[in-house]
Amino acid sequence: MSYDLIIAGGTVATASDTFNCDVGIREGRIAALGHDLGAADRRIDASGKLVLPGGIDSHVHISQPSGEGIVMADDFASGTLSAAFGGNTTVMPFCVQEKGTPLRRTLREYHAKAEGCCYTDVSFHLVISEPSEQVLGQDLPALIEDGYTSFKVFMTYEGLALADYEMLQVMSVARETGALVMVHAENYDAIRFLTQRLEQGGKIAPKFHGTSRPIPVEREATHRAISLAELIDVPVMIVHVSNREAMEEIARARSRGLKVYGETCPQYLVLTEADMDGLNMEGTKYVCSPPPRDHASQAACWEGLQNGVFQTFSSDHCPFRYDDPAGKLNPKGRTSFRWVPNGIPGVETRLPILFSEGVGKGRISLNQFVALSATNHAKMYGLTKKGSIAVGMDADIAIWDPEREVTIGQSLLHHGSDYTPYEGIAVRGWPVTTIVRGQVVVCDGVLEARPGAGRHVARDRSAFARPAG
Amino acid sequence: MSYDLIIAGGTVATASDTFNCDVGIREGRIAALGHDLGAADRRIDASGKLVLPGGIDSHVHISQPSGEGIVMADDFASGTLSAAFGGNTTVMPFCVQEKGTPLRRTLREYHAKAEGCCYTDVSFHLVISEPSEQVLGQDLPALIEDGYTSFKVFMTYEGLALADYEMLQVMSVARETGALVMVHAENYDAIRFLTQRLEQGGKIAPKFHGTSRPIPVEREATHRAISLAELIDVPVMIVHVSNREAMEEIARARSRGLKVYGETCPQYLVLTEADMDGLNMEGTKYVCSPPPRDHASQAACWEGLQNGVFQTFSSDHCPFRYDDPAGKLNPKGRTSFRWVPNGIPGVETRLPILFSEGVGKGRISLNQFVALSATNHAKMYGLTKKGSIAVGMDADIAIWDPEREVTIGQSLLHHGSDYTPYEGIAVRGWPVTTIVRGQVVVCDGVLEARPGAGRHVARDRSAFARPAG
Amino acid sequence: MSYDLIIAGGTVATASDTFNCDVGIREGRIAALGHDLGAADRRIDASGKLVLPGGIDSHVHISQPSGEGIVMADDFASGTLSAAFGGNTTVMPFCVQEKGTPLRRTLREYHAKAEGCCYTDVSFHLVISEPSEQVLGQDLPALIEDGYTSFKVFMTYEGLALADYEMLQVMSVARETGALVMVHAENYDAIRFLTQRLEQGGKIAPKFHGTSRPIPVEREATHRAISLAELIDVPVMIVHVSNREAMEEIARARSRGLKVYGETCPQYLVLTEADMDGLNMEGTKYVCSPPPRDHASQAACWEGLQNGVFQTFSSDHCPFRYDDPAGKLNPKGRTSFRWVPNGIPGVETRLPILFSEGVGKGRISLNQFVALSATNHAKMYGLTKKGSIAVGMDADIAIWDPEREVTIGQSLLHHGSDYTPYEGIAVRGWPVTTIVRGQVVVCDGVLEARPGAGRHVARDRSAFARPAG
Amino acid sequence: MSYDLIIAGGTVATASDTFNCDVGIREGRIAALGHDLGAADRRIDASGKLVLPGGIDSHVHISQPSGEGIVMADDFASGTLSAAFGGNTTVMPFCVQEKGTPLRRTLREYHAKAEGCCYTDVSFHLVISEPSEQVLGQDLPALIEDGYTSFKVFMTYEGLALADYEMLQVMSVARETGALVMVHAENYDAIRFLTQRLEQGGKIAPKFHGTSRPIPVEREATHRAISLAELIDVPVMIVHVSNREAMEEIARARSRGLKVYGETCPQYLVLTEADMDGLNMEGTKYVCSPPPRDHASQAACWEGLQNGVFQTFSSDHCPFRYDDPAGKLNPKGRTSFRWVPNGIPGVETRLPILFSEGVGKGRISLNQFVALSATNHAKMYGLTKKGSIAVGMDADIAIWDPEREVTIGQSLLHHGSDYTPYEGIAVRGWPVTTIVRGQVVVCDGVLEARPGAGRHVARDRSAFARPAG
Repeated sequence: MSYDLIIAGGTVATASDTFNCDVGIREGRIAALGHDLGAADRRIDASGKLVLPGGIDSHVHISQPSGEGIVMADDFASGTLSAAFGGNTTVMPFCVQEKGTPLRRTLREYHAKAEGCCYTDVSFHLVISEPSEQVLGQDLPALIEDGYTSFKVFMTYEGLALADYEMLQVMSVARETGALVMVHAENYDAIRFLTQRLEQGGKIAPKFHGTSRPIPVEREATHRAISLAELIDVPVMIVHVSNREAMEEIARARSRGLKVYGETCPQYLVLTEADMDGLNMEGTKYVCSPPPRDHASQAACWEGLQNGVFQTFSSDHCPFRYDDPAGKLNPKGRTSFRWVPNGIPGVETRLPILFSEGVGKGRISLNQFVALSATNHAKMYGLTKKGSIAVGMDADIAIWDPEREVTIGQSLLHHGSDYTPYEGIAVRGWPVTTIVRGQVVVCDGVLEARPGAGRHVARDRSAFARPAG
Repeated sequence: MSYDLIIAGGTVATASDTFNCDVGIREGRIAALGHDLGAADRRIDASGKLVLPGGIDSHVHISQPSGEGIVMADDFASGTLSAAFGGNTTVMPFCVQEKGTPLRRTLREYHAKAEGCCYTDVSFHLVISEPSEQVLGQDLPALIEDGYTSFKVFMTYEGLALADYEMLQVMSVARETGALVMVHAENYDAIRFLTQRLEQGGKIAPKFHGTSRPIPVEREATHRAISLAELIDVPVMIVHVSNREAMEEIARARSRGLKVYGETCPQYLVLTEADMDGLNMEGTKYVCSPPPRDHASQAACWEGLQNGVFQTFSSDHCPFRYDDPAGKLNPKGRTSFRWVPNGIPGVETRLPILFSEGVGKGRISLNQFVALSATNHAKMYGLTKKGSIAVGMDADIAIWDPEREVTIGQSLLHHGSDYTPYEGIAVRGWPVTTIVRGQVVVCDGVLEARPGAGRHVARDRSAFARPAG
Repeated sequence: MSYDLIIAGGTVATASDTFNCDVGIREGRIAALGHDLGAADRRIDASGKLVLPGGIDSHVHISQPSGEGIVMADDFASGTLSAAFGGNTTVMPFCVQEKGTPLRRTLREYHAKAEGCCYTDVSFHLVISEPSEQVLGQDLPALIEDGYTSFKVFMTYEGLALADYEMLQVMSVARETGALVMVHAENYDAIRFLTQRLEQGGKIAPKFHGTSRPIPVEREATHRAISLAELIDVPVMIVHVSNREAMEEIARARSRGLKVYGETCPQYLVLTEADMDGLNMEGTKYVCSPPPRDHASQAACWEGLQNGVFQTFSSDHCPFRYDDPAGKLNPKGRTSFRWVPNGIPGVETRLPILFSEGVGKGRISLNQFVALSATNHAKMYGLTKKGSIAVGMDADIAIWDPEREVTIGQSLLHHGSDYTPYEGIAVRGWPVTTIVRGQVVVCDGVLEARPGAGRHVARDRSAFARPAG
Repeated sequence: MSYDLIIAGGTVATASDTFNCDVGIREGRIAALGHDLGAADRRIDASGKLVLPGGIDSHVHISQPSGEGIVMADDFASGTLSAAFGGNTTVMPFCVQEKGTPLRRTLREYHAKAEGCCYTDVSFHLVISEPSEQVLGQDLPALIEDGYTSFKVFMTYEGLALADYEMLQVMSVARETGALVMVHAENYDAIRFLTQRLEQGGKIAPKFHGTSRPIPVEREATHRAISLAELIDVPVMIVHVSNREAMEEIARARSRGLKVYGETCPQYLVLTEADMDGLNMEGTKYVCSPPPRDHASQAACWEGLQNGVFQTFSSDHCPFRYDDPAGKLNPKGRTSFRWVPNGIPGVETRLPILFSEGVGKGRISLNQFVALSATNHAKMYGLTKKGSIAVGMDADIAIWDPEREVTIGQSLLHHGSDYTPYEGIAVRGWPVTTIVRGQVVVCDGVLEARPGAGRHVARDRSAFARPAG
């Protein structure tokens, strides 16, 4: 029997093992692992290369309406193209509930925007901004049943922040349905208060974005989110954790026996608050929330990746253009940090940064890299057929050249932003070929696939939300 | 030179020392400590007795409007009479801001209710329920300047709970003025949510009061209050702490270098949640917030008294009548625990319970008893002339018979309630004589003073809120 | 191309993945994973079964001289037979340095005892009892170079306990050579002191074994071992951890950035100190060190398996016969718990207990089971070709019937002991077939192999001792 | 009735209170506190001054044989003279057991050296270096009964270090007799090992003293000492704690309910390891054990004084001469840090440093200063009549000029050393008058008393070792 594609001669790694063998792919699935597998329509030589599960980026923002005339820099075409060039085979964007609009209608609109455009697979998380009776009692449970098995809630941002009472309501739905709740944990009132005080003191430069949401603001909300989940007895995922104090809340909760999970992102490993202190408005290029902290926080986040405080490493890709009145330099944004859109691009650079700084510098093993970049995302969010290289799994594969040296720069990247906050960072190790369900999307750095190669994936319940993960 | 009063032959104790000497009192002040002090208008023989600083109960509720036709069981006459018989010389009731009414006017009404009625000294804390611009910018700073140097805020209760934003506002005033903020720390949204869920499940008996506000509800709010104080960099006093988890938040905050203080109460040492599980409505007699917990929490609270997590031990006296439609058994209260007025009497029993269970059972020393019952209250709340037995201090003294055995019962007490939650508890050690600024209010268990012996005391700033406490 | 053996139709699990496929084995190695792999000399139908990496038991004692006329109940034949029937394919016994004898000579004697007798692979750890200059400077480094890449040290036991100074010496060798140090952490002086005090009080029954080495004795030594490793900056593995306090030392150390690893054992999951309180001398059947603790400690150890405090789960198989004057009931053992040989059998029951109580009851996932029972042992101790099911790995496989219900009992077992401490425990899930490097040792519960099927394996350095594990 | 001495017009402070009054002294005791006390043989005007309990320095070394031809720089005359000028009225030196000599004989020799020479009261601690049966069974219990109610044990130093077994033995005696055990907590084996490694590497300069005993060495021994005390269930005082990690062991132990106390010293507040890095041998001037650490450790020790981790603040006065072959510059000391005598002078500077850096800079209150410098020492070590200003107490008083500015320098001091490690430190606040049991020893900086004014004091049991402290 023959294969559609054989990846030959590479070093395969999973979240637990590393071994040399060929990978035989048939009908989009991994059909065999071994040597001398026989005939294939296509054969990719991976000698000297790493054959890894394609990256899953479980935290990206694409084509989200951002209000105030702000336009997100990536649509599904550019966003997933950038993802594919960054070694990813699946991304998980958010479908944000619009108040007053039926949730399913909004979801249909997101689907319409993605349909036929994607280069990687996608799977939507929901964002609940208005937990009405209709949403809690009907729409959300139905959508979870349909495979949208995770949703995010915000504890900050005008129009998005849920009150504690609402948090408890949506967590109750999660408990009943087995969905996984993701939480953006920052205290809205505190940010509002500090922002006003800063503005009253004339402190409006981008760097005061960091001052307006210091570590206790994040630690407080993290503890609160966990406490609410504790009352409902439901698992919870704290996304984009930036510092040791918030991490300690996660660790304390686990030692109380709670199912609390954590995610961190590249910006918390290689950027600091000082990056927001650029000339003129350059600092806006680094404005995201929570803000990057300091070197001690970076070290803490590395520890969290090593010791299991964090299960997933995501980009929180949330791209805006810098030199654009519809982006970072929007007119109101020039009047105060408060109006600078929160978010930075990163879907294409997430994995090279983790590989080079993590595996390359001996902070994590190759198997940990696979777990943090793909396998744990799949388990966390119910992508049962993805996230590993094993017989029967989707043939979602990234081939890496572990020796390739690259200096990250905007000219290399495929996202819609006009800058990268990681400009100038030198890495060793780069994904050269990306295969999505057996389709070669990028081959040796050359795009081969057409838009629509990627499709939406419905999901099972989280393996981490079930009794034993 | 002669004295108005000499207390002779007793064993005097302060927060640090224990010694035998006579106490000479002149013009309401302690004028001399020694032997053979000379002549005096009156001489009280304290042989075999302990001569202690009169108790200061820094957390009592008297004559507060309680809404819904509920009437508090003590006015200033009965409340301070009960306090005096319980070995107290000063109590600190709350003046609760009424929304829409000038703060000073409400305060005048409270003063009017107290004027001429009191048997002990009193000093009002304020309660801020509506931090309007007028209150924040004018009224509160002015009242602090007038000697009302502490105020309480609530994180729960309809009509009282402040939002985090408002908490930050009033804490800012405290920081600017040196006032001390007291916090009732329970998460209102969580209590509302749990209460509704319980009621929907038909769980309306008094015992579900405890279920509706479990430990994480208190721990969460404690951490949040501390975090808000941390952002403003202002000291904060967490009142009526009931359990180890909340205590740990206080201890963690201190280890971060914050000025966070704590108070616990008799109900958390000798009652448990099981007490609310009485026949019929008997459980309502124990309904207070936070609710009494379990035996492990009692042990934790004792530890907190021993190791300094707690600075003060107060009664949170908040008396209602049991057999009274204007009290615990109000008609709505019979329909759900939600409507049972929160609060129990305790101003008269606070000190005998602490003395007998603490000093008597070797858990705390006599000097710690003095600190927890009087000295620390005075320092915490700026009662500069009170709280110790030293030359120049107000002659506020309680003479205790350390051997006297009493079984606590309603028939012994002088409060306005028709029951005591401590009925039947046997104690050894009882305050027999109470002296307020040199006036003998109770002598050997007999009332000597007339209403008006006690008066209101303006206060200095807290010694604990200053750089070095 | 054909295979020597194909395991067909089973569900394969690794430490990270679970998937359905056939496993093709050639020349003792896993050659292919897939479906329709083609011809094979032998085919085992694994439908409805789990195909797991063979268990690695990295902590067993076989044929060790035990002094005082005590004879260990297992030689290499019975010990590895029992292991094979328990789903294991490799065991790691100890070669204990004899004082005054060249280390390599002793090792040769152990090898001689094992040669030609084993049913599973074996790989020796060393035990250093006398760190002479010769040992530190020559013998130990040479043996590590030869593939004996781990050694254990004892902080207790007459004749074995090393002084702190000696611990530092051997840890220095580990640092220079990359060997992994295993530590038996109990404070010898404390045990001696408490034992004498108990004996002086006439407390000599087996149950006082537990009293003589309470939790602080283990916690103290754990912290000390870690501190010494911290001074030398070398990884350390704390074996047979029995309780939460010792676990906290491990967790604290990791949060200081140290490479400290942990192991627990079945006796700490399903036995308690109360088991030693049997009639007559029945309690001796449970005498091991550290002793089983209580139910809270069991829960803690489960937590440690779930949250990563523990990397490995071993048996600490150390078998003695009960009804035998050369075993548990030796004449001196009857005079005091002090003389009862420390150790219990468990190599055959380790995995069924973990599977049934762990996977079966939802405490751990199947992948965690694989990690804790095999993969992590291989990584921890440098068994590079073992511990997983992946192309190129040794074909060390256990086929489990996940539904098989067994009540553990001595009559079922193959060890040399005349009892099992786990008598009567009902489990669901049992290893039915065991394959060592492609040789079917046990098939459907029937022994197929001859002694000598297993052989000794030299090891690489620990993956956990290298910069990134 | 008249007084021998009246101290008039000062501000008196105790560990809890601060007040203005005259202090009347008769027959060596405080007889009265008040105003207009009447006639007195002598009257000291303390207007504008602080009248404080005389300092108790519970950790000093005087006239101890130091081996190797090393001579301690202070005998009882110079040591207590220096103490008196530093505001102390009692010092507690050590009587070190000499191996092979009856304990009581050695004690007599110490008494003989002190008799008639002292300017302050003294009270000996014992040091147990050889816990023979005679010592454990007879001598030590008898001496404790005679009022030597505390003894120190060492976990390091050749000839002094006790094995864990011996620690348990002496702790058992403490438990039976109510004595308080003081522990010098550093791991001897680790220090020996590190010292040898440093010397082998040619690292012999004084600064390597610090490297040879890093923080984990102290933390380890602290935890071990506490664990041993936990096994015996006896209180323990950890002396001269230098850093946060050791402090955390104390705090952790207390949270387990243990009676563990702590002491810190000036060297850990104002010196650092860098001070040992002087030109030539200047670094030897700062060699003491544990060594001064870093600025973070200083901050930690301040926190410990503020939050109650530490009960006492002592000097650990252990004076050697610098420019003296019998002192710091002994011939062997020049060959390696190992031979530099451990210890620095500080009995005269302890209190001004704490006052100026603590009270003056707002880190502690005046009452905390009194507690840490006198009251807690008295309670800790059973000096029942000392440590406070209260009627009936010994008239041990230091009068301080809180405004006096002094730059600490060798020329000001009265000790036997030829240098002070605190040279050049500017303080504000100085003790000007010292009164021992009513005798004016120093008046306005002028010596008034003759040798022998001070005498030895037998002690009661520690108040902290009794059930309720």
